[in-house]
Amino acid sequence: GDAKAGRAKAVGCQACHGLDGLSKLPDAPNLAGQVEPYLVKALTEFRNGTRKNEVMSVAAQDLTDADIENLAAYYSGIQIDVIPPG
Amino acid sequence: GDAKAGRAKAVGCQACHGLDGLSKLPDAPNLAGQVEPYLVKALTEFRNGTRKNEVMSVAAQDLTDADIENLAAYYSGIQIDVIPPG
Repeated sequence: GDAKAGRAKAVGCQACHGLDGLSKLPDAPNLAGQVEPYLVKALTEFRNGTRKNEVMSVAAQDLTDADIENLAAYYSGIQIDVIPPG
Repeated sequence: GDAKAGRAKAVGCQACHGLDGLSKLPDAPNLAGQVEPYLVKALTEFRNGTRKNEVMSVAAQDLTDADIENLAAYYSGIQIDVIPPG
């Protein structure tokens, strides 16, 4: 996927997931640094109806395969540091 | 939820999701710092069949409501820092 194209497409995701991949809502997951194939799978499953969510089942309908790959590249590419739990 | 109890329960999650919440597999998401209500919802939906996944649909069957709350408290409580994309 093309992260730069994904960033442009992520304008449609940012109200819930943030352009930085940090959730704005209790039901929306963080996407920053998320595993790329997992993101592709999630969006594909929302689009084909395997996975259902009031918002995402609608939002994913407009995405092409390239959009999904680009969005996954963008959000997975955001760097995160994890402070290991004690 | 009780994060300490969640950490003990997370021994059953770590092969795929890591005890630090960082994925070990391409299909498994990172859980570190994930939104707590989102994690509760995801586990509840895997348990009741609303959401399906080969591994999680089985793994979630053994979880009580308290287990789900505790696991969500544990994984959401792992601190993450996000380096904002340029």
